[in-house]
Amino acid sequence: MTEMTVETSLLERFEAARAASIVLATSTGQQRRSALLAVADAIEARSGDVVDANALDLANGREIGLSTALLDRLALSLERVGSLSASVREIASLPDPLGQTVRGSRLGNGLKIDQVRVPFGVVGAIYEARPNVTVDVACLALASGNAGILRGGSAAERSNAVLVQIIRSAAESVGLPADAVQTIDDFGRDGATALMQARGYVDVLVPRGSASLIETVVSSSTVPVIETGSGVVHIVLDESAREDWAVDIVHNAKVQRPSVCNAVETLLVHAAAAERLLPPVLDRLAASGVTVHGDDATRAIWPAAVPADEDEWATEHLSLDIGVRVVDSIDDAVAHIRRFSTGHTESILTEDVATAERFLAEVDSAVVMVNASTRFTDGGEFGFGAEVGISTQKLHARGPMGLAELTCTKWIVRGSGQSRA
Amino acid sequence: MTEMTVETSLLERFEAARAASIVLATSTGQQRRSALLAVADAIEARSGDVVDANALDLANGREIGLSTALLDRLALSLERVGSLSASVREIASLPDPLGQTVRGSRLGNGLKIDQVRVPFGVVGAIYEARPNVTVDVACLALASGNAGILRGGSAAERSNAVLVQIIRSAAESVGLPADAVQTIDDFGRDGATALMQARGYVDVLVPRGSASLIETVVSSSTVPVIETGSGVVHIVLDESAREDWAVDIVHNAKVQRPSVCNAVETLLVHAAAAERLLPPVLDRLAASGVTVHGDDATRAIWPAAVPADEDEWATEHLSLDIGVRVVDSIDDAVAHIRRFSTGHTESILTEDVATAERFLAEVDSAVVMVNASTRFTDGGEFGFGAEVGISTQKLHARGPMGLAELTCTKWIVRGSGQSRA
Repeated sequence: MTEMTVETSLLERFEAARAASIVLATSTGQQRRSALLAVADAIEARSGDVVDANALDLANGREIGLSTALLDRLALSLERVGSLSASVREIASLPDPLGQTVRGSRLGNGLKIDQVRVPFGVVGAIYEARPNVTVDVACLALASGNAGILRGGSAAERSNAVLVQIIRSAAESVGLPADAVQTIDDFGRDGATALMQARGYVDVLVPRGSASLIETVVSSSTVPVIETGSGVVHIVLDESAREDWAVDIVHNAKVQRPSVCNAVETLLVHAAAAERLLPPVLDRLAASGVTVHGDDATRAIWPAAVPADEDEWATEHLSLDIGVRVVDSIDDAVAHIRRFSTGHTESILTEDVATAERFLAEVDSAVVMVNASTRFTDGGEFGFGAEVGISTQKLHARGPMGLAELTCTKWIVRGSGQSRA
Repeated sequence: MTEMTVETSLLERFEAARAASIVLATSTGQQRRSALLAVADAIEARSGDVVDANALDLANGREIGLSTALLDRLALSLERVGSLSASVREIASLPDPLGQTVRGSRLGNGLKIDQVRVPFGVVGAIYEARPNVTVDVACLALASGNAGILRGGSAAERSNAVLVQIIRSAAESVGLPADAVQTIDDFGRDGATALMQARGYVDVLVPRGSASLIETVVSSSTVPVIETGSGVVHIVLDESAREDWAVDIVHNAKVQRPSVCNAVETLLVHAAAAERLLPPVLDRLAASGVTVHGDDATRAIWPAAVPADEDEWATEHLSLDIGVRVVDSIDDAVAHIRRFSTGHTESILTEDVATAERFLAEVDSAVVMVNASTRFTDGGEFGFGAEVGISTQKLHARGPMGLAELTCTKWIVRGSGQSRA
């Protein structure tokens, strides 16, 4: 295939997405809901095909030496396919985000101005080895009246192809254009490059995956990007933290699913509570196979910790490893977070309401918590049905991105002959 | 000055902005309001200094051959200085955008989640020859709890220096950091380049000015950008349009201030109304010195029009020139707009409600109007006090950008020991 052929046919896909987006923008909520229910039905009816295709991707992944964490993200068991269709049904049950008036007023000159919610148009996603993202992004896009162009990566190519085909057929079955959802996995790297340069065709691009993938998209894309994901996530144990909550929440945040971005990576403990809290918290982690990377003060209290090296505080392990540091005050904890956090999620465990409110006000991350596990930063948990990703930037969307985050607004102005004085 | 010196001291400014932003984020609305009133007072007290500095910039601008349109944008008469302080007072009178809860719910597991409005942190602006933008952006940033870094260009350097100094002193006079507002005009082009690469220091960058300036910022910046401004703005005269409104609104939209982005550039006229409407509308424009660039059908009806060349429909004249084309239907008008609009503002003049609603639904621009002049797309007119710019992209902000557009949100999660199942 010559490069020119690649470019021409990619352009045709982008144009098809734009054309589909025009139809979607004036579709009814009822139509889009029907399409989603058809997707859920078809995923269930064809779950065997999905798992078979995924088995081929997994075999190939093991052959090319994908990491355990990546293979875990890639795998679609029958149970995971079931939870995919359940999340599509949940998206279908949410209120239609389109047409809603965000703000409105009547000006002194009689003009009526209303800011109303409309779809972006065409949403692009670049991700790696996660076929569940294919369904989540495609269905959130469809539900919010956007066309989607997906580049899911070669590792999940077979799984993605089956899932995209299911979604396209379902859209068509209710009279919406099949091109509402397209994959460009078949174009390999050229497809990703073209998608990042498709300004004018694609309205927003969401990268999801490793830090290096996100960095590449942020620095190479001329399409507006929403940065997602990387999570150097902190839990702070205040002087007043309850021991039972500290043990349970830190364990849950580290161990329940260590490979994902909302897992905790650094534990900061108030010096006045370190002797009380570190032994039970770290014993419980160690019992689950977690390696503790401690600073000197931590190791003095809990000698089994390995010494934290100088990169520890900036490291997103995504594994059963955690950095632990003793801090002298909440000021110190906030300063540490300001320096090392990636702005994803931070939680403080405290019984003191003034400390809690101060932490909530001063920590500038997408999600700031009191007395809860960081694992709750998730579109599904927040009631969004699914998520396009978790935005760690501040522009447009911050935190889990659901339907509302896939819309923009336009201003509608109704006059009766007004000119500007 | 060596390049290293430049970079080091620029970095110091960026760090000072970040430090100021931390103070601003927890400042009270009352403090920020007091700062703005102090700015307005000081602008009035020192209006002579402002006009004097501006006179030097204007003299220099004439010497280096700035266009009439640029000189018009650069000029600050005593009257315009008065309207600057009036707009600062208007911003001060608006409700505080910070702390507001955008969405909130209590989840089934008892977690309380709230999405609250917070400042971006540090806002950057790159613009040209418009000292009023210095005041508008700095004061909107201050009012919304953001630090601002301004690069206003060499043509307005003296005017900007006086204005920034006024704003810094006013901030300090109420106990806020002077570094809440900084100019980097003294670093020349190096300053602009560094600002575009200041990811991690600057949260959002707004370019305002010529199409080429905006294009440079969009393609070179690693800081998230909100694209503003360029306006190939359309007015459509439907078959049912009232003649008196057509004559007044088209004249107002073209002639009142032709050098700005919300001035109309293209008039599309329904074929069934062309003979009735074109003569009075174009006669009125011609009487104000407008050159009409018409298609063949227009010239058949109104022979004084010059032939539109092939670039006409994509041209933003910013002058007393207008393109005029006869279309066969509203479908044709919408298709023309889809192809040539820059997504700024389009208005239809019609008496038919179904046509009006269709136009509002199908045209995908920041502002879509019925029976009103496109000149109303403006932060001041919309009741925002002023504007940072008019966003023509879809991410985060669309249309005139006021206080709310300079904020982002974060999620606050309050728990009582919850872990994820």
